[in-house]
Amino acid sequence: MPSKNNSARDYFHSPANFLKHTVIQKRLERINSAIQQEILAESAEPKILYEAAYHLINAGGKRLRSLLVLLCCEAVRGRCENALPICVATELFQTASLIQDDIIDQDTIRRGVSTVHMKYGTEIAILAAGLLIAKAYYLFGKFGNPKLVRTLSLAIHRMSEGEVAELLINPKNPQSFSKNNYLSIIRRKTAASFELAVKIGAILGKASQKQKKAISKYGFKLGMAFQIRDDVLDITMMNGQSSKASLSDLHLKRANYAIIHALQECPINERIQFLNALEKGKIKTLVSFLEKTSAVENAMQLAESYSFQAKQALQGLKFANQKILEQLAAFVLIREF
Amino acid sequence: MPSKNNSARDYFHSPANFLKHTVIQKRLERINSAIQQEILAESAEPKILYEAAYHLINAGGKRLRSLLVLLCCEAVRGRCENALPICVATELFQTASLIQDDIIDQDTIRRGVSTVHMKYGTEIAILAAGLLIAKAYYLFGKFGNPKLVRTLSLAIHRMSEGEVAELLINPKNPQSFSKNNYLSIIRRKTAASFELAVKIGAILGKASQKQKKAISKYGFKLGMAFQIRDDVLDITMMNGQSSKASLSDLHLKRANYAIIHALQECPINERIQFLNALEKGKIKTLVSFLEKTSAVENAMQLAESYSFQAKQALQGLKFANQKILEQLAAFVLIREF
Repeated sequence: MPSKNNSARDYFHSPANFLKHTVIQKRLERINSAIQQEILAESAEPKILYEAAYHLINAGGKRLRSLLVLLCCEAVRGRCENALPICVATELFQTASLIQDDIIDQDTIRRGVSTVHMKYGTEIAILAAGLLIAKAYYLFGKFGNPKLVRTLSLAIHRMSEGEVAELLINPKNPQSFSKNNYLSIIRRKTAASFELAVKIGAILGKASQKQKKAISKYGFKLGMAFQIRDDVLDITMMNGQSSKASLSDLHLKRANYAIIHALQECPINERIQFLNALEKGKIKTLVSFLEKTSAVENAMQLAESYSFQAKQALQGLKFANQKILEQLAAFVLIREF
Repeated sequence: MPSKNNSARDYFHSPANFLKHTVIQKRLERINSAIQQEILAESAEPKILYEAAYHLINAGGKRLRSLLVLLCCEAVRGRCENALPICVATELFQTASLIQDDIIDQDTIRRGVSTVHMKYGTEIAILAAGLLIAKAYYLFGKFGNPKLVRTLSLAIHRMSEGEVAELLINPKNPQSFSKNNYLSIIRRKTAASFELAVKIGAILGKASQKQKKAISKYGFKLGMAFQIRDDVLDITMMNGQSSKASLSDLHLKRANYAIIHALQECPINERIQFLNALEKGKIKTLVSFLEKTSAVENAMQLAESYSFQAKQALQGLKFANQKILEQLAAFVLIREF
C-alpha cells in the first residue's frame, strides 16, 4: 500500500515503499505520461515494428533510470520540464538494452510478459531495439545538446564492454571468475548506466562541476549496490524454487557476486564439487555451499557499503532533494523486485 | 586496372572504373586513413568486442556512403577536413547495419570473410553493432551538430521500417509482393541511407537550402538505382550458379524487383508454377519466367531512369564536382560488385 504520509521523515521509515511514495508517484506519473505522449505521436508503418519497440515499455517497469534523471536535475534546482523529454529518451534507451539483453540471454519473460524476440521474432526485435536507440538519440539531439549525445555514447561503450566481459566469464577459469573481474564487469554493465542517468540529470539542471562530480559518484555507487542486490535476489529466487532452469540461468548467463564469493571461499578440495553442482544445477548442494561461506550476507555487506558510499557522496553540497536521493540508496538495498 | 588518365572527360569513358580513378582513390585513401586512425586510437577491453566491431571494416568494402559524404561536402565547396570524422562515423554506422543485416538474414560471408555473428557469435555481434552505432553518434556529437544527430536518427527510423516491411514480404500475398510495396521498401531501406549520406555532406559543407534539396534528391534517386542494380546482380549470380542455396537466399531474404516483375507479368494460370519454382529453388524454371517477362531488362530500365533522375537533380546549380557525381550515378548502374 502506498504511504499516505508525505513528510521527509517518512522516507526514512519506509524505504521499501519508496516507489509508492506520493513524491515519487507524482514524478513517475509525469514520466509515464511523457512516454505515452511520445508513443502516441508515432503513427508510422509497419505497425508491428512500433508495437515491438513499445511492447516492454507498455508492460511497466520501475522507470528507475528516468526517475534518476529527473531527481538529479531537481537536485541542482533544474526545471523538471527541461528534463522530461530526456527522461523519455533514457527509458527508450534502457528498453533497447533490455530487448538486446533478452536476445543474448535467450530469456522468455520480462516484466511479466513475453520478451520482444519471443513475441515478434529475433529479426524484428533487433530492428526494434535499433529504432529505440535512434529515437533516444533523436530526443537527445532535439532537447539535449552535443555533450549529452557524447555522454550517452561513452556510457554505451562501457556498457557494451561490460556485457561482453560478462559473456567471457567462465567458472572454470579462476581469473575470469574472480571478484575483481566481477566488479570490473558490473562497474561497466550496471554502474555506468546509473552514472549516465544521474549525470544527464545534473547536466540538464546546469549543475556546477562540484555538484556534477558528487552526483556522478552517487549514481555510480548506487548502480553497484543495485546490481549486487540483484544478484542476491537471483539467489533468493533460486533458493525458493526447485526448477533446474533457474539455476542454469544463473550461472550460464550472468556473473553473480554470491556465487563467485562461495567458490572463492570454499576449500580447494571442494571446488570441483561446487563447479559440478553449478554446472548440473544441483540446487541443494549449491545452497549448502552458499550458506557455509555466508555468501548472501557477504554480498549484502558489500551492497550496503556501496549504498553508504552513494549517500556519502552527496554530503556537504545541500542538494534540493537530498533526503529522497538517500532514501533511494536505501531502497535499492531492500527492494524485492 | 586503375585508369591513369585524370581528366574529367575520362569519367565519362570509364564509369566501370569509377572507384579506381585517381580522384576517387585519393579520397578513399583519406577516408581509410581516417578510419584506421579511429580504430588505432581505441585500446579498450575486452579486445574481442573491438575486433568484432572492426572485423568487417578491416575486410574492405566500397566505402560508398562515406565517399558520398565527402563528395557532397566538396560539391558545395565545403572543406574536406571538416567532413572526414563524419565520413568515419558514416562508415561505422553502415558497418553496424551490415552486422545486423547478416544476423537477420543468417548470412555467413560478407566482403569475402566470415560475417561477424559467424566468427564471434550472435551475442558479441549484437553488442559490437551497438558499440559501432554509439561510436558513430559520438563522432556526430563531437564533430557534427544536433541537426546531424537528428538527421541520422530519422534516417535510422526509415531504414528500420524498410527492413521490417521487407521481412513481412510474402510471395503468396499479392499485396505485399507488389512493385508498389517493393518501391516503398527500398525507398526506406536503401534510398534513405544514400540520402542520409549526401545530406550530411551538404550540411557539413554549409549548403544553401536549394543546394541541399537538389543533393538530397540526387542521393535518394542514386540509392534507388543502386538497390535495383543490386537486385539484378543477385539474379545474374543466381543464373551463373547451380546451387539451390543462392536462389533460396534470393526469395526468402529480400525483395527483388526482377522477381516481383516476373510474377506480376506471368499469365495468371502459371503463377502457381512460378511460386513453386521460387519456393523449391528450381532455377531453370525461374530463369525461363524471368526471360519470358524480360524481368532483368525491365529492372535495368527502371534503374537507368532513377540514375537519370539523380543526374537531373543536380542540373543548374553548378556544383564544384558535378561531373564526378554524374559519373557515380553512371557507375552504380554498371557495377559488377
